[in-house]
Amino acid sequence: MSLLITNVGSLVTNDPSHGTGPLGLLADAAVVVEGERIAWVGPAASAPAADERFDAAGRALLPGFVDSHAHLVFAGDRTAEFNARMSGQAYTAGGIRTTVAATRAATDAELDANVLRFVTEALRQGTTTVECKSGYGLTVEDEARALRIAAAHTPETTYLGAHVVAPEFADDPAGYVDLVTGAMLDACAPHARWVDVFCERGAFDGDQARAVLTAGAKRGLLPRVHANQLSYGPGVQLAVELGAASADHCTHLTDEDVAALAGSDTVATLLPGAEFSTRAAYPDARRLLDAGATVALSTDCNPGSSFTTSMAFCLAVAVREMGMTPDEAVHAATAGGARALRRTDVGTLAPGARADLLLLDAPSHVHLAYRPGVPLTAAVWRAGVRAV
Amino acid sequence: MSLLITNVGSLVTNDPSHGTGPLGLLADAAVVVEGERIAWVGPAASAPAADERFDAAGRALLPGFVDSHAHLVFAGDRTAEFNARMSGQAYTAGGIRTTVAATRAATDAELDANVLRFVTEALRQGTTTVECKSGYGLTVEDEARALRIAAAHTPETTYLGAHVVAPEFADDPAGYVDLVTGAMLDACAPHARWVDVFCERGAFDGDQARAVLTAGAKRGLLPRVHANQLSYGPGVQLAVELGAASADHCTHLTDEDVAALAGSDTVATLLPGAEFSTRAAYPDARRLLDAGATVALSTDCNPGSSFTTSMAFCLAVAVREMGMTPDEAVHAATAGGARALRRTDVGTLAPGARADLLLLDAPSHVHLAYRPGVPLTAAVWRAGVRAV
Repeated sequence: MSLLITNVGSLVTNDPSHGTGPLGLLADAAVVVEGERIAWVGPAASAPAADERFDAAGRALLPGFVDSHAHLVFAGDRTAEFNARMSGQAYTAGGIRTTVAATRAATDAELDANVLRFVTEALRQGTTTVECKSGYGLTVEDEARALRIAAAHTPETTYLGAHVVAPEFADDPAGYVDLVTGAMLDACAPHARWVDVFCERGAFDGDQARAVLTAGAKRGLLPRVHANQLSYGPGVQLAVELGAASADHCTHLTDEDVAALAGSDTVATLLPGAEFSTRAAYPDARRLLDAGATVALSTDCNPGSSFTTSMAFCLAVAVREMGMTPDEAVHAATAGGARALRRTDVGTLAPGARADLLLLDAPSHVHLAYRPGVPLTAAVWRAGVRAV
Repeated sequence: MSLLITNVGSLVTNDPSHGTGPLGLLADAAVVVEGERIAWVGPAASAPAADERFDAAGRALLPGFVDSHAHLVFAGDRTAEFNARMSGQAYTAGGIRTTVAATRAATDAELDANVLRFVTEALRQGTTTVECKSGYGLTVEDEARALRIAAAHTPETTYLGAHVVAPEFADDPAGYVDLVTGAMLDACAPHARWVDVFCERGAFDGDQARAVLTAGAKRGLLPRVHANQLSYGPGVQLAVELGAASADHCTHLTDEDVAALAGSDTVATLLPGAEFSTRAAYPDARRLLDAGATVALSTDCNPGSSFTTSMAFCLAVAVREMGMTPDEAVHAATAGGARALRRTDVGTLAPGARADLLLLDAPSHVHLAYRPGVPLTAAVWRAGVRAV
């Protein structure tokens, strides 16, 4: 079965060979989908025939968003904590431990329903690929369970036992690192593609992070790092040294950090939802882009610091606050995310790519930044199947 | 026909006599709608019977948003201008004149379809009352046409012939003020409830603004003012002196301006979408609230400086950037907007109020700020009729 999507007013291919600029923009375009894949991209006037036809009515079509950083396996929410923080009130309760307790107490079915809810919510907003981390279990069984559940929804599963030191190990962080690199890793590795660590004061230092990532790599997991979010630190340099696919957050970077990213294949994944919801200073995307680094934008969806699934929102904030142009932000939210997941089959619309498509209720991809907050999803296809 | 909406997890009534705090919050609540009106509000356990029953399933219910400042009668968009501005490129073309030219060139049917599109888009996001200004016609016929078209969609129509000096009067601004206060007013007054003026350097000074507002008042139009947006100026003081329902923007305020607003019935309507999309400094809502002023939040939806219909987005930005608590922002986007339109039948959920209701896909109104960018509309009723 083939599908011709024609009368596309503006097509973002992210393939410069198909159109103008880094976005590979093509006006008056068409796309042919065969099964799960893109079969043809080009001017509408010269499109081949197909079994079915969809009239895009002059609207903009782009690759589905690739959200390469999300924490979706959790229970409960932290409304009271958010409300207190944004109301200038003291709030001494749990933070991340609140979510750990709720997640441990939840049934498998409850956690699975939550992941499905957020993946579906994201899909309705155009996200066709989403990464999903563990990190709210922090026991062998709860981390493995989180990854088993996540793996039913996405192949991009990330073992984040090293999110924070589990409460049971508050007095023995070294013992917790032993667990994360030992029995917990053994239980989690079969269900994960990636290994991640929160390299930050109060979480895991550079040596601990290195131990976690190298242990994971020995089990075939590919590294990615929560790096330099709250303070300067060794995370970015470690990510680059270990060939991590991505260093995530990158809010506090030295010139050496920026140069290391620019000279590597490690993507700088920026997560403006976190700075938005914590009133923190934003990362400087302009500095990274000007240095030649590859930038991705992702949601960081989690109940504590960034409870959004909206890639469009993150993109609009990145344009407002981080010095990105609308084109750069759209690229970062699609091709950038794909690079951060080392995926070549998503984030681009070229023959052979997976048919993950977002049709906007707008004539241009620029409207994602120009019309902030407005739901602009007109249609979504995932692997060639109409999903929205 | 009566409708019982029950099992409301959290109800925002904006009526302190019905619940806790300024939002009049009520947990485990129910609402009874009879025809177009709210008939009863209270605990779900003591709700009276009704013809129909809707199970809110524990979700949050609040008054529909009241968007008291929007410019919806226009044609074309300004994507290229926005893209250039956000990409740091020079862009010398038209600005507001681009929209004036496109609007004049549009047919009545085209303009009507555009207004319907934006009103519908806003309704899907929970906005049940929207104000709509003229201001892109700037001739007698085009301003009157804009208001005739707007009046078919909302009773809250605002004559804004004094948006900028019409291009034909570039060398004769006094002549344009004569037109705005003369023949144009005669043509527009039958179709408008309000009169507005952009009191700003480059638009209309204090004396001109006073002439416009007093001329409008003589024709029965109620005053509101675009005041102190881009610079300090006389707009706020003039608004208070003339008893305007609202001074809109309020980005640059002296202590005297804040005191004048706090000591008056003039609402300070803040429009964070404009600062978001122009990278301008935000107004200080905290300062106004602490002084005792009434604050409203609105979208300022227009194709040049704030092309959003999302009250939820504006509310989230107000919390992030303007020192508002989530509760204050929700109040400002509902009851505040109603005050800014001198309406007592909307913005509140008390017996007798119009049954304008927004059911969120979330357990609390706080989620409007906690989940930025995520479409949270579960259902909308307008005047008792299910609209979404």
